[in-house]
Amino acid sequence: MLEDAVDAIASLPGVGQRSALRLALHLLRQPAENVHHFTGAIDRLRDEACYCHTCMMIADGPQCSICADRSRDSRTICVVENVRDVMSIENTGQYHGVYHVLGGIISPINGMGPSDLSIRQLVERVSAMEGPQTEVILALSGDVEGETTSFYIYRQIAPYGVKVSTLARGLGFGDDLEYADELTLGRSIANRQIFKP
Amino acid sequence: MLEDAVDAIASLPGVGQRSALRLALHLLRQPAENVHHFTGAIDRLRDEACYCHTCMMIADGPQCSICADRSRDSRTICVVENVRDVMSIENTGQYHGVYHVLGGIISPINGMGPSDLSIRQLVERVSAMEGPQTEVILALSGDVEGETTSFYIYRQIAPYGVKVSTLARGLGFGDDLEYADELTLGRSIANRQIFKP
Repeated sequence: MLEDAVDAIASLPGVGQRSALRLALHLLRQPAENVHHFTGAIDRLRDEACYCHTCMMIADGPQCSICADRSRDSRTICVVENVRDVMSIENTGQYHGVYHVLGGIISPINGMGPSDLSIRQLVERVSAMEGPQTEVILALSGDVEGETTSFYIYRQIAPYGVKVSTLARGLGFGDDLEYADELTLGRSIANRQIFKP
Repeated sequence: MLEDAVDAIASLPGVGQRSALRLALHLLRQPAENVHHFTGAIDRLRDEACYCHTCMMIADGPQCSICADRSRDSRTICVVENVRDVMSIENTGQYHGVYHVLGGIISPINGMGPSDLSIRQLVERVSAMEGPQTEVILALSGDVEGETTSFYIYRQIAPYGVKVSTLARGLGFGDDLEYADELTLGRSIANRQIFKP
């Protein structure tokens, strides 16, 4: 029985047999109701979670809580690779628009082409609200695959006359110039901004 | 729903919000039956696991699989601090006796006294099979608390005339002399053994 639970926990990515045993013994020491709450939350997630029909974010029903929130600006769409990125941006508390989750990135090496992502759905969304009042923020990673995907999406949505932006790149806050890589530092200089003290 | 599952997973010791999100998204990608197997194994462990009446190991019923195994030497009792230690020794495949799980170690700082451990049960076990054919191996940690507990148990069981042994201590296999601490190296020399090539 202990072995079954340890094996089950060790099947999670990044959890070894030793950690799994430690976690199993931890759960064994908890009140039964806490453990049932834990397993119940996971079962509910797996059984009931679905994807928002608009933005492909994980949702409790056909529309996610962000798309359903009338206080958010539905004409600002932030395009991200995955659900983790939505959570990261939400955690900043700086963004009040909506999202579009691609579900991956264009990567020929990993066999991911445009049709494997939700780019068609994004284009449909954008075509329904064309014009410069709509902004699409391409918040993809800064590597070759991210840049390729951004460029591909840009070409698809440019005809609708929407504003297309991308994340500011440069030195992180608190970063030391001495340890910054040359590409980042170079872009930071090129994209320098007016100093507002 | 996602938040509930992430919070539940993040309640595990050593799992942060970021890892919890990663694990929740992993579980969401698995087939539902795998996830139910995972949560079921944990529920069963919590609901059905009990402690072996003889050795205090986690068991499926009143007797654990080790105590129930007739091929094991029930007159050799290895005394360990916790269930993890049993698993570690079992994994070596070098031990064919039985165990006694103390459930902790004598530690006045942490408020653990002899009566908080299963020492009374151990003494009862030993008293039922006194004499030199019985061996009690004190497999406790080598720190002050471990030594104190070993000495306390030794005094309790010595009157029954059983053989009492402890784990060999010395350099680990593959250890470099240069980096060994002086205490370990000193004991390794004092407890040197006949070279058997």
